[in-house]
Amino acid sequence: MAGPGEFELIREYFSSRFQTGARPGGVDSSVVLGIGDDCALLSPPAGKLLATSVDTLVADVHFPATADPYRIAGRALRVNLSDLAGMNAEPLWFTLALTLPESNADWLEPFARGLAETALSYGITLVGGDTTKGPLSITVQVTGSCQTPLRRDGAGAGDIVFVSNQLGAAAAALPIVLGEYSPSETQRQQADTAYYFPEPQLQLARAIGPYASAALDISDGLLADLGHICEASGLGAELRLDNFPVAELARSMNAENALETALTGGDDYQLCFTVPERHLDAIDKLQLPITAIGRMCKEPGIRCQLNGKSWLPHGRGYQHF
Amino acid sequence: MAGPGEFELIREYFSSRFQTGARPGGVDSSVVLGIGDDCALLSPPAGKLLATSVDTLVADVHFPATADPYRIAGRALRVNLSDLAGMNAEPLWFTLALTLPESNADWLEPFARGLAETALSYGITLVGGDTTKGPLSITVQVTGSCQTPLRRDGAGAGDIVFVSNQLGAAAAALPIVLGEYSPSETQRQQADTAYYFPEPQLQLARAIGPYASAALDISDGLLADLGHICEASGLGAELRLDNFPVAELARSMNAENALETALTGGDDYQLCFTVPERHLDAIDKLQLPITAIGRMCKEPGIRCQLNGKSWLPHGRGYQHF
Repeated sequence: MAGPGEFELIREYFSSRFQTGARPGGVDSSVVLGIGDDCALLSPPAGKLLATSVDTLVADVHFPATADPYRIAGRALRVNLSDLAGMNAEPLWFTLALTLPESNADWLEPFARGLAETALSYGITLVGGDTTKGPLSITVQVTGSCQTPLRRDGAGAGDIVFVSNQLGAAAAALPIVLGEYSPSETQRQQADTAYYFPEPQLQLARAIGPYASAALDISDGLLADLGHICEASGLGAELRLDNFPVAELARSMNAENALETALTGGDDYQLCFTVPERHLDAIDKLQLPITAIGRMCKEPGIRCQLNGKSWLPHGRGYQHF
Repeated sequence: MAGPGEFELIREYFSSRFQTGARPGGVDSSVVLGIGDDCALLSPPAGKLLATSVDTLVADVHFPATADPYRIAGRALRVNLSDLAGMNAEPLWFTLALTLPESNADWLEPFARGLAETALSYGITLVGGDTTKGPLSITVQVTGSCQTPLRRDGAGAGDIVFVSNQLGAAAAALPIVLGEYSPSETQRQQADTAYYFPEPQLQLARAIGPYASAALDISDGLLADLGHICEASGLGAELRLDNFPVAELARSMNAENALETALTGGDDYQLCFTVPERHLDAIDKLQLPITAIGRMCKEPGIRCQLNGKSWLPHGRGYQHF
């Protein structure tokens, strides 16, 4: 029975920090009633779809239980916002279901601060939640509005496959985050950013929205996630890995294995998307930080080439069980 | 690594059972895209508010870890539906974030069946979720549409306080559910129903919607929950307990303590609501299973009378920490 009781806890750390509809630059008028009643009452934007996604982060499965709560909170929200990016949805509201071994102010204060700062910077409003006693675990559900959904099942044969930015940094960061490897200062910073501050690609999704035929965020590793696009679209893919955008951290941690890490490591939260050839010029003109890595094809399965030769990875993305 | 991998698990137990928009009597056209993409895509009903609520049930905190998964699944959804009832919202969609120690078909099959049957009977559609490895815990978020919200902050001084059906059965059931008490067959059945099959008072909420000034579902014990109405409405309450609707199970388990159990025990998921005097005739005519238990007043705090004398409970509702 350490710390304040449940109701005081919620009030102190969440209700006060996340008042109904409080947002940068004013009040979110879509939130009619926020935290504190049986339900939040929300006014959805007229004429748009809602996109919603939920993710649970379990201590010592998805993050070290002893990790900085400020960082954990931000990461929990960021990985969910990434699902909105994968669908090309604009953030509106989120809920937090927080399970804690004990009500501990030293943990809750930085956690709530990290959550609030991240929510503010992405313009998303906390509208409700639940706090329970039990093994540390964080479930966030985000909801956004969506006019031009980017689904997984829209790719066509011949469409070009793109990925955003670089891949492999989050997987390469893991031994550093877990304290199993002594990094250089540069590596430490890169690992911290990749693992705790992944950037949901909301702007990029908005930019490609009118042109892409399919998209998703890369959470389980590129090959596994591209596999989802292939399966949903009833297609396969041919990749050329010669200019694959491998993150610097993956190279500096293990140069030999860097490409494999970039293709199969999870947690990068970049976008993988497909673009019909007729839109390639339009995409080019946007000058986005993206790389064409291959092409969708009719034959099922993903085949990779490196230096003109067939290339096979050892692993195939992150399996949760 | 027991059982199928994560993606197969989701597909087998949830996607197949909960196809996009599948509902009793047809397809839920508000579900544009269900399980299996980055986000579910939903089309909210025009001109209505959305009501949303999330609850986590942790094994060995909110239910025995060894309890029947069929029952646990139903209970998890029912307690969330009860929050929609507390706001007078109509069920639309829900998500499930399920954390499991292992991917075990013997557990998942009855769990998914219990969830599907409960969802069907309340006309609510599973639209997304997450499965993770970790200590057993179930987070359900429900969303409903809401035209006449019943908030906590609408009660007026002089309004009559009502509760639905009987209270105290779920708290009285606990020693039976936990196997700490050998019940009669009647008691066993009553405990099973009260604990695992609480009835979300959706119909009753709809009936009182036009007349009630405030409402909530009783999850933490009547006195604690009525306290929330008092606080939100800036009022107090005077209760007369002479005809208080105490559940039969509470009486048969401990006659002496039955009233206390009914007033402070949690998990009943009945409604507590307030009605302005001018609407009492209208409420009367509905012939609902409700009991008037007192009146809202200006003086803060809740005061109880039994047999013309002041009465004080020992406990004050369920505290999660």
